[in-house]
Amino acid sequence: MSGSGIAAAEQLSKSDTLGLRKKHLGPSCSLFFEKDPLKIVRAEGQYMYDEDGRQYLDCINNVCHVGHCNKRVVEAACQQLSTLNTNSRFLYDNLSLYARKLCSLFPDPLSVVFFTNSGSEATDLALRLARAHTDSFITITLEHAYHGHVTSAMEVSPYKCPEGKMTLPPYVHVAPCPDSYRGKHRDADHGPEELGRLYAKEVKDICEKVTKGGDRVGAFIAESMQSCGGQIIFPPDYLRRTYECVREAGGVCIADEVQIGFGRVGTHWWAFETQGVVPDIVTLGKPIGNGHPLSAVVTTPEIAKSFHSTGIEFFSTFGGNPVSCAIGMAVIKEVEDRDLKTHAKEVGDYLVSSLRSLMPRFPMIGDVRGIGLFVGIDLVRDRELRTPATEEARRLLFRLRQEGVILSLDGPYDNVLKFKPPMTFSKANVDRIVLLLQRLIPEIKEDATAGFQKKPEACNALTADKPVSRNARICVAPLIQPPGDLLCGMRRAQGCQSRMKSGYIASCY
Amino acid sequence: MSGSGIAAAEQLSKSDTLGLRKKHLGPSCSLFFEKDPLKIVRAEGQYMYDEDGRQYLDCINNVCHVGHCNKRVVEAACQQLSTLNTNSRFLYDNLSLYARKLCSLFPDPLSVVFFTNSGSEATDLALRLARAHTDSFITITLEHAYHGHVTSAMEVSPYKCPEGKMTLPPYVHVAPCPDSYRGKHRDADHGPEELGRLYAKEVKDICEKVTKGGDRVGAFIAESMQSCGGQIIFPPDYLRRTYECVREAGGVCIADEVQIGFGRVGTHWWAFETQGVVPDIVTLGKPIGNGHPLSAVVTTPEIAKSFHSTGIEFFSTFGGNPVSCAIGMAVIKEVEDRDLKTHAKEVGDYLVSSLRSLMPRFPMIGDVRGIGLFVGIDLVRDRELRTPATEEARRLLFRLRQEGVILSLDGPYDNVLKFKPPMTFSKANVDRIVLLLQRLIPEIKEDATAGFQKKPEACNALTADKPVSRNARICVAPLIQPPGDLLCGMRRAQGCQSRMKSGYIASCY
Repeated sequence: MSGSGIAAAEQLSKSDTLGLRKKHLGPSCSLFFEKDPLKIVRAEGQYMYDEDGRQYLDCINNVCHVGHCNKRVVEAACQQLSTLNTNSRFLYDNLSLYARKLCSLFPDPLSVVFFTNSGSEATDLALRLARAHTDSFITITLEHAYHGHVTSAMEVSPYKCPEGKMTLPPYVHVAPCPDSYRGKHRDADHGPEELGRLYAKEVKDICEKVTKGGDRVGAFIAESMQSCGGQIIFPPDYLRRTYECVREAGGVCIADEVQIGFGRVGTHWWAFETQGVVPDIVTLGKPIGNGHPLSAVVTTPEIAKSFHSTGIEFFSTFGGNPVSCAIGMAVIKEVEDRDLKTHAKEVGDYLVSSLRSLMPRFPMIGDVRGIGLFVGIDLVRDRELRTPATEEARRLLFRLRQEGVILSLDGPYDNVLKFKPPMTFSKANVDRIVLLLQRLIPEIKEDATAGFQKKPEACNALTADKPVSRNARICVAPLIQPPGDLLCGMRRAQGCQSRMKSGYIASCY
Repeated sequence: MSGSGIAAAEQLSKSDTLGLRKKHLGPSCSLFFEKDPLKIVRAEGQYMYDEDGRQYLDCINNVCHVGHCNKRVVEAACQQLSTLNTNSRFLYDNLSLYARKLCSLFPDPLSVVFFTNSGSEATDLALRLARAHTDSFITITLEHAYHGHVTSAMEVSPYKCPEGKMTLPPYVHVAPCPDSYRGKHRDADHGPEELGRLYAKEVKDICEKVTKGGDRVGAFIAESMQSCGGQIIFPPDYLRRTYECVREAGGVCIADEVQIGFGRVGTHWWAFETQGVVPDIVTLGKPIGNGHPLSAVVTTPEIAKSFHSTGIEFFSTFGGNPVSCAIGMAVIKEVEDRDLKTHAKEVGDYLVSSLRSLMPRFPMIGDVRGIGLFVGIDLVRDRELRTPATEEARRLLFRLRQEGVILSLDGPYDNVLKFKPPMTFSKANVDRIVLLLQRLIPEIKEDATAGFQKKPEACNALTADKPVSRNARICVAPLIQPPGDLLCGMRRAQGCQSRMKSGYIASCY
């Protein structure tokens, strides 16, 4: 193949890879950098390599938790794949040993596990457990939350349901995201403790409304730090106060640790521990299998019993199979033996302090927030007004990629640079990023402002080939142009238009 | 470890494996042979081995399609695991190549694929596609159908929702299972063609009711041969006629090939082809990855486009990752290169004819039905009345296990012995089973009748430790005892009782 100019690891030229994908993969499946996607042929640790052998520093693959192609994980998988891979209706040691090990990482009374194959399946099962236990479908979720792509998970995922696309069912209530920087209550007006109280009060109000209507709350579901909302770290005591209200109203509390679990926060195995709470149900996914399709739901014996008493068996063909369990065990052992939790704390602290040290020189960095290796940079055009620098963020992202660093954007305005790298991420990696940002932010700022004023071209460029909900939000963020102009080039702008009309966006600045 | 009496491959004694499992795994997850489960330590081809090195012939793991621990599949997995495992937001060859290969196995216009991680996720996505395309939630499913464990899949799975446990939502309509032997219309009264017409007419009636009410049908979902219903082979032209009615009423047709796809039927890659139809959406699972958590939804460009136009991105973290695609490709190549499709036809035909040859001598064999390596033996107490021999089937199952053969039971009365072995199953394996059945059936018949008349002990034994829905059905099948006696020992018998009262069971004899 090398004679044809295609690198050894490649089987197709990049354009053929893309062409075949476009022909046969559902168009709803999008690519990073849609117009010029990255082709990756191999990866190792926190590095990925494209078809030309170019190295990229991976700052976003929290799924490859203990490093891409981690040797211990690969060996555990291969050994088990060649020995036995069957289902949990048979007895085998791996399931029992892994269930014990996983449960040992949780505080009492969380000691019972169910194995599934994706975060989405874990959410679905968590909701089923909660609903069986409380006999209530009523669920409270957070603004901007994302809990998975199956129907039941979408129903509690406002991130996927902007107005005009899909309405949430009447039994789902949405509480404001406890975002101290850009949410309903802000750090400019309130101290941290007060913010925790104010945001918890929002959930309490929903609970009261439900109970006054004669109903019982079924569940409160939230990531313990919100990823899709823009790397949101909750104010102190938020979850403690919220869990109290929910439980008083008869509900159970589901902590979604799919993005952030397994030691990423550095100080603990689970992000909920940073808030001093013990949930009733915890969902686990992504990092749990270092890329292998594995997920789990951990709960209390009492809730598991309620679920059992419905008389409906739970069986997942692949869930907790011997290979999945071998891989899951290898991931935990790797975190333990290499003390990656402590490493995440040290490197994460260094990342946050290094990024914050840039703030005096770069007003575009509106906020740096994070715990452990879960960090966000909120980019703004005006630090006082906190105007999201969406277009600048997009350009910065692309320039970083050109320089060999992969990051992603999130948050309601797609202006938050997300760091959730493999746990092997190093201080040297941090130094490289900090140096790069110092060089790139000034050039981005100029380009972006110039580009943006040439609208509507900039708007078209943002939205033309990817008319999904999140792009609608990109587009409405800069309220400079009237909606008519802003929306040109968008094939489906209902969500966008309705947000415009409702003034929803305007009120967030 | 060998010094402690535990076999080399074991890490725990069997009782410890079971003890830990009971402590930490949700009690809703059941085991085969609950009271004395099988511990399996390794497997190869169509054989599994317990902790004492005892060999079992595996007649039920259709998941390990090309054989347990198939070398080509293991090698493909290991090679890819150590090279790259990331997500589909990056470009890589495996996804494009596998998508093309998979689509090449389908008739036009089925040429677009979405990758997911389980049959349940595939069902959920199939329903979302159908609902997006037709703008209707109304779904027709079959009696006894099972399509997965997530909430949306449960809603179209009457198998999991017997009366009293969970009611199906109002937008789900249940059509009679086209079971010519035990269904509403039977081969005793009608010829094969007429049965196809009669059962299709049942779906037509539902469609007409829906359209007369001013609604549109969204989807018809059915396995192309029904597994949980008791290995049901549809009468000729059933799907062709049914698909016609559904499409006339505005709906799309979903073929669930999760259990039966990938050449199991011998003559074709897909069971729907045996009915001469082309579905609009096909769900794939179990065998697709030989045990690896992989599934897929294949559809038409038109339906994929409708889904895309909702503006909601579809992303599955693990779905279609490089390892899943490498494994999926290896499975297809193994079926092709070893011509396992032809093998399935030859061995399957031999299995069916060998089993049928026993019928003159063993009246307990009420029916032998199957295509390729998807075969069922319907055991009866009375061949004319077709009274299900549920208790005898249970005893036979246990005796077969004692003799080193693993089968399972299914169907509404748990009286159908199911064959869906790895595709490497041989004629010699068939001979062994036939010999065994000749020996075991006579002894079972005596034991079972004796045991059964000592009720209610027999009933307690059946239901005491596993009060799930399917056992309720086991228990009500023999209508000899009055309900009060029959139900003793059952902790949750609502479903059972309501079926009794409604006369539902009685009408099926």
